[in-house]
Amino acid sequence: MQFGLNSSKIINGIFLLFLLITLSKSWAQEKFPMINSERLELQLKRLSLFGINEEGGNDRVAFSDYDIEAHAYLSNYLKALGLEVSVDAAGNLIALRAGKNPTLKPIAFGSHIDAVPNGGHYDGDVGVMGAIEVLETLIENEIWTEHPLELIIFSNEEGAIFGSRAIAGKIDMATLEGKTASGYTNREGVLRLGGNPDRIMEVKRSTEEVHAFLELHIEQGNILHKNKLDIGVVEGIVGLKWWDVEIRGKTNHAGTTPMNDRQDAMIAAAQFVLSVNEIVTQMEGAQVGTVGRIQAFPGAPNVIPGKVVTSLELRDLDAEKIAQLFKMISEKANQIGEDTQTSFTFIPLDATAAPALTDKRVQEIIRKKATQLGYSHKTLQSGAGHDAQDMAVITPTGMIFVPSVNGISHAPDEYSSPDAIAKGVNVLLLSILSLDTTVFN
Amino acid sequence: MQFGLNSSKIINGIFLLFLLITLSKSWAQEKFPMINSERLELQLKRLSLFGINEEGGNDRVAFSDYDIEAHAYLSNYLKALGLEVSVDAAGNLIALRAGKNPTLKPIAFGSHIDAVPNGGHYDGDVGVMGAIEVLETLIENEIWTEHPLELIIFSNEEGAIFGSRAIAGKIDMATLEGKTASGYTNREGVLRLGGNPDRIMEVKRSTEEVHAFLELHIEQGNILHKNKLDIGVVEGIVGLKWWDVEIRGKTNHAGTTPMNDRQDAMIAAAQFVLSVNEIVTQMEGAQVGTVGRIQAFPGAPNVIPGKVVTSLELRDLDAEKIAQLFKMISEKANQIGEDTQTSFTFIPLDATAAPALTDKRVQEIIRKKATQLGYSHKTLQSGAGHDAQDMAVITPTGMIFVPSVNGISHAPDEYSSPDAIAKGVNVLLLSILSLDTTVFN
Repeated sequence: MQFGLNSSKIINGIFLLFLLITLSKSWAQEKFPMINSERLELQLKRLSLFGINEEGGNDRVAFSDYDIEAHAYLSNYLKALGLEVSVDAAGNLIALRAGKNPTLKPIAFGSHIDAVPNGGHYDGDVGVMGAIEVLETLIENEIWTEHPLELIIFSNEEGAIFGSRAIAGKIDMATLEGKTASGYTNREGVLRLGGNPDRIMEVKRSTEEVHAFLELHIEQGNILHKNKLDIGVVEGIVGLKWWDVEIRGKTNHAGTTPMNDRQDAMIAAAQFVLSVNEIVTQMEGAQVGTVGRIQAFPGAPNVIPGKVVTSLELRDLDAEKIAQLFKMISEKANQIGEDTQTSFTFIPLDATAAPALTDKRVQEIIRKKATQLGYSHKTLQSGAGHDAQDMAVITPTGMIFVPSVNGISHAPDEYSSPDAIAKGVNVLLLSILSLDTTVFN
Repeated sequence: MQFGLNSSKIINGIFLLFLLITLSKSWAQEKFPMINSERLELQLKRLSLFGINEEGGNDRVAFSDYDIEAHAYLSNYLKALGLEVSVDAAGNLIALRAGKNPTLKPIAFGSHIDAVPNGGHYDGDVGVMGAIEVLETLIENEIWTEHPLELIIFSNEEGAIFGSRAIAGKIDMATLEGKTASGYTNREGVLRLGGNPDRIMEVKRSTEEVHAFLELHIEQGNILHKNKLDIGVVEGIVGLKWWDVEIRGKTNHAGTTPMNDRQDAMIAAAQFVLSVNEIVTQMEGAQVGTVGRIQAFPGAPNVIPGKVVTSLELRDLDAEKIAQLFKMISEKANQIGEDTQTSFTFIPLDATAAPALTDKRVQEIIRKKATQLGYSHKTLQSGAGHDAQDMAVITPTGMIFVPSVNGISHAPDEYSSPDAIAKGVNVLLLSILSLDTTVFN
């Protein structure tokens, strides 16, 4: 075999190499607007002051005083940016920036600022402050999109994803009367935020009203951080169901009732907690099951509890599997009831969410923009519920995840680095600009 | 063998028979003062009105408004009977009836009127209203004892046997600051009852101040009722220890934390609850162990609990056995902690009571009086703590039990029949009269 090169081939090779260098140079120099990471970091710190507690955790529970104060702060801040700020009937805070073409539907994006009790300062906050940073960057760079831009700060996300469900038309009057972690009902909370519970049904939007929706959020899991990845492209949000589990035994004196003569609801509850763990763990897959709340009645050290009430939560990307798990758990509960002479009642709670898939075209935009920026990324599912799951019902929706250190969330030591957050916000910014030139059919 | 009777033997036999009939007749006709069962039944109903709830349960928690009101009612009632009524510094309500011999020490008797939350109307109440009925019967029958008689209604029995512990000199200033089920501290509660927390140490009595102490109480167990017995002669009151058990795991998001990556304090707590039951049950004997209170933090359905706090109570007539059980339980807890990546801390609570034995001479008096009245009786131990256990420290003490239907107590359907109660009160009355002529050395 001959192993030589003729001169024309060499010239062609040099030319190709030159072309490649030129192209890659021009690609690297393509002017992306980039967000201001330091300003964003400062803004997140400012927001954290509304509700930070002694443990460093976040008590900005939806509808609490902290929540009301933070809303007022952000409302003023957004007005000062020249945006058109309003509160809808569900208490969602909305900031509009006009587009060049007023006939086009808005591109919506946002998240929430409410927290679980003693939660962290990144869940929700990163998405909201990131979205504001996107708007500030566009304003600074005098970039005007064709579509109007609509920032939404959804009300009461942690208490069963209230504000976005209202937009998706998934609440009813009973939801309004539900008590929230703040002690207020949703009705009272909406009033506190400046909404109008009596007109809440008008908040529902049709599929014709929004061009697309994007939400930036911390992962709250450990896939990105553990694998040293920058960006998660969310393919879907798991569905979830909640129950109250009421276990009834027989209240009796703890000193005078022999061990073999008790109908102790606490023993039945303990067996139940372990059986949920066992059933959920034994099945293949990524499903999760949790008992996070428990109360014994009357609840004194010297009284055998006649009643114990626990919560039960099941999540999976497949609604069918949730139903199957619940069937197994309730059957096992009945058996525990027989063994311990107690009875189990499962009361479904109004916090059910169907699994939601994001739009494949929007996923592809996010993936492309992350790649252009040189960020590593991975397609994954969200174990947590998000406002995006309800927006997905009415418009093409995408979700961008940034890494949570050690996957910790809903806790004071929830953390994402300023650099990791900035990467997510840059992807959000470029994805919005890309959506601005995308036509969905 | 000859099988005849001579006439002198027959005469002797007839004479003996005649003597026996005469004696037994005079025995049956011996005039015992007997209590008024109907009045007592009415009085118990009246007392129940202070705190009866919708379930028919009793919410007369120590230091609550109901408790204060019931004390005022009884205070007035006792004054109207001509007794010398006072409240000591610990909030114990005391009614004195003079004796014929003012140099003699008083015979004390009584119980408590406070209840566990949603408790019953017999625990404590029977002893207090029975004691008042004894005094009314003596007054009506114009019977004057040699010894003064002292009725004591002890304060806050259910919240760690407060009032009688003060008399036994077993409380300290820290006890005063302890929060009670009413929401008030013992200090606040004592003030509400008209006591004087700053002088509470003066309430302590020496062994020279009381002739004897008797307490009538419902059994709160099922031995008497199940065996169709009238009277329980209590040989001792089991000792008891309380702990707060703090279990620490890691708070995390219930949707995003895989099952195998959790440090779920609820799982550890459930294993702990079952292990307490297992360890206490496996050992021979009548010991009991109970987890009656539990709380998860933060306590939301969508958050893996990072902390769970439970109570632990152990009871036995042998302090050594309680210590041994606790050792086994805490060792097992450490193992659970290792298995579940959680940690256990046991915090001893100020509700500890040493096992207390009643006085054998007083037991014998109760036994004799029950027999004289034709009531069946049995010697047994008390699984529940009582004011008598502290009075036993300073004076010869006895306790009379009446049957609890099905052994139910600390619950709305706690019940003892008027007839069963009347028998106990008659034994109390006769035992007091017998103690009046007893000299202890």
